[in-house]
Amino acid sequence: MNYTFSSFTDGLKSSAVRDILKLTQGNAVISLAGGLPAEEHFPIEAVKEAFERVFQHGGKSSLQYGLTEGYTPLREAICHRMAKKGASVKPENMLITTGSQQAIYLLTRIYMSAGDVVLVENPTYLAALQIFQASGVRVVGVEADQDGMLLDDLEAKLNLHRPKMVYVTPTFANPTGKVWSLERRKGLLALCKPNNVLILEDDPYGEIQFDEKAEYPSIFSLDDHPEGSAVMYTSTFSKTVVPALRTGWIIGDSRVIAQMAKAKQAVDLHSSTLDQQALHQLLTHFDLDAHIRTIRNEYRVRMELMKSLLQDPRFSDLHWNEPQGGMFFWVELPESIDANQLLKKAVEKGVAFVPGMDFYAENPRRNTLRLNFTHTDNANMKLGLDRLAEALDVYKQNV
Amino acid sequence: MNYTFSSFTDGLKSSAVRDILKLTQGNAVISLAGGLPAEEHFPIEAVKEAFERVFQHGGKSSLQYGLTEGYTPLREAICHRMAKKGASVKPENMLITTGSQQAIYLLTRIYMSAGDVVLVENPTYLAALQIFQASGVRVVGVEADQDGMLLDDLEAKLNLHRPKMVYVTPTFANPTGKVWSLERRKGLLALCKPNNVLILEDDPYGEIQFDEKAEYPSIFSLDDHPEGSAVMYTSTFSKTVVPALRTGWIIGDSRVIAQMAKAKQAVDLHSSTLDQQALHQLLTHFDLDAHIRTIRNEYRVRMELMKSLLQDPRFSDLHWNEPQGGMFFWVELPESIDANQLLKKAVEKGVAFVPGMDFYAENPRRNTLRLNFTHTDNANMKLGLDRLAEALDVYKQNV
Repeated sequence: MNYTFSSFTDGLKSSAVRDILKLTQGNAVISLAGGLPAEEHFPIEAVKEAFERVFQHGGKSSLQYGLTEGYTPLREAICHRMAKKGASVKPENMLITTGSQQAIYLLTRIYMSAGDVVLVENPTYLAALQIFQASGVRVVGVEADQDGMLLDDLEAKLNLHRPKMVYVTPTFANPTGKVWSLERRKGLLALCKPNNVLILEDDPYGEIQFDEKAEYPSIFSLDDHPEGSAVMYTSTFSKTVVPALRTGWIIGDSRVIAQMAKAKQAVDLHSSTLDQQALHQLLTHFDLDAHIRTIRNEYRVRMELMKSLLQDPRFSDLHWNEPQGGMFFWVELPESIDANQLLKKAVEKGVAFVPGMDFYAENPRRNTLRLNFTHTDNANMKLGLDRLAEALDVYKQNV
Repeated sequence: MNYTFSSFTDGLKSSAVRDILKLTQGNAVISLAGGLPAEEHFPIEAVKEAFERVFQHGGKSSLQYGLTEGYTPLREAICHRMAKKGASVKPENMLITTGSQQAIYLLTRIYMSAGDVVLVENPTYLAALQIFQASGVRVVGVEADQDGMLLDDLEAKLNLHRPKMVYVTPTFANPTGKVWSLERRKGLLALCKPNNVLILEDDPYGEIQFDEKAEYPSIFSLDDHPEGSAVMYTSTFSKTVVPALRTGWIIGDSRVIAQMAKAKQAVDLHSSTLDQQALHQLLTHFDLDAHIRTIRNEYRVRMELMKSLLQDPRFSDLHWNEPQGGMFFWVELPESIDANQLLKKAVEKGVAFVPGMDFYAENPRRNTLRLNFTHTDNANMKLGLDRLAEALDVYKQNV
């Protein structure tokens, strides 16, 4: 039997992050690679109680098939949370998805055809790039600084490439940790909306902010919404509650949501209703905002530790910015160092990171890498950075 | 803002079944429409205990991100179950999916390109048709009798259309309830494999058999397997455990599985790991086979009741075959009756079914309908069939 695959598989590289995760699972390598939240802070009691409540109150009907759009009380509870962030939406403006990954996939599936253009930050989230590239969508990077996309370059590329969509993670981007300024958020909207260019705002990390008082309004909340909005906004409970429930959501114009729901019906009928009901119970009986404040504080402490370790003289030729939230340091190595080659030495020394190359839509810079600071405890973070310093030493000696 | 959608949405009709389900939710209409299992027989205590075991033994790490391929101990447990049915596979031959619906979608995504041809039974599972049609895949129906596809017509259409895939549900098909004979199963394999035509064997109902002693070997088990097999086999726990966990699987050649896993990584990263771990605990500590025997018996009793009701003189001009398993009666009305029109009268009378039309890939027969016998208790089934008889009366009087 000869198997011949569709063109979708041509664009599907297995993600470097996932491959490395497999490599390092269950052995002595300290992984600063994955975008994993800290297990120590998982609210396991609250999750456990939430499931108990589902079984107790929902009974057997809680185990039946559910709606493709998602469990209605959960959608209502998320609407309530979104309203507190300046985004007024109704359940018909929301689709529950298997993580925000599925929201990106479904929107791409119903909105983008092969040959259409999407503009992205460069570098950007690699699994979004995978979706675009596998779907035959042409990906064009827009120049940016620490405050977000440069509006001049954005405007030029809107005119040149006539994109259908712009994909952005404006708050604590993966991999760069960047936060867009309010001016850039408004500027993106002002340039896209009159040109009928849809903005996909991906916000998995927005709630992991280190400055409790800072405000980062979503681009969605800055636009007239929900009907007729130029923005589709997606987020997830993977970073604030737990990843295992795989529950994300996307909000926006109800006509777009309706098309996504029809696509989801074909793709997997619906996501786990048991998990959705448990999340609803958790949101009702658990103080998630207090929990998020705990996580913010803990992750800030870990970020500070990694920052202090990166300030060691052994890393003096590395460049990085202090993240204001999220999960990552984005590190620039000296031009002469190839992070993919460095990774091999690093794994030999017992530490892993993600080379930056795969995050680039175009013009990849091989001397970049991403370090996660949320998943590793203090002792291992110190040991991990020591090993990274050793790997850099070995690398430099061998060149 | 003008939204313009991709061609994928052109092929996406919202499924008639799901639309009717929405219509009838929470009101007085007796629904014989959905393919829902009986809630009374959900093993809620076993599911509850399974989750308790996950929290107790798995601890916080049970709530972390998991592998795209699926929770390894669950895959091992399913391998063990499949081996008892003559299918020897290893975990690398298996992908865990969000229901078998996702397995059909992912295989189509990686294997079929727009313009490729898939052969199907006619009528067949409508949500599979939706996937094919939305993907731009050309769907061609093969003639069939009660024993499965007619091998002459299959051979002619293999030669004429050069399909890449054949999609079949050989055991208690949805909607027809049909079971393929062993000869037709072998015949399909013998015709497809030398022509490199992949067989997608969809088996959600195979375990719901009414004759405990009957054997229905999967086409997958009849082929040399798993490597190099012409068959990809998918099934689900939605009908044997509960639907809410949304856990299905697909097995076959490891190279095909690997491509599907890469696609799944882009589509949703992975399915709920909490649900997968709970299913693994359930398979370990609960006698699922005994439970399946209970369901078989209960569903057989319900089928017998519906059969006796359909034998009423008021239904003497209807044609149907007694199903040997599964969940459905497939009913042929007199030629003059349009089931879509009849449905309106039926809903007025307080009963719903699924008109047959949407199950056809081509040449739809409007005088067909599907009745589910698993979800409704005795009293409602009697009442529902009474209402159906009344609706037929009204229909005939108005013509």
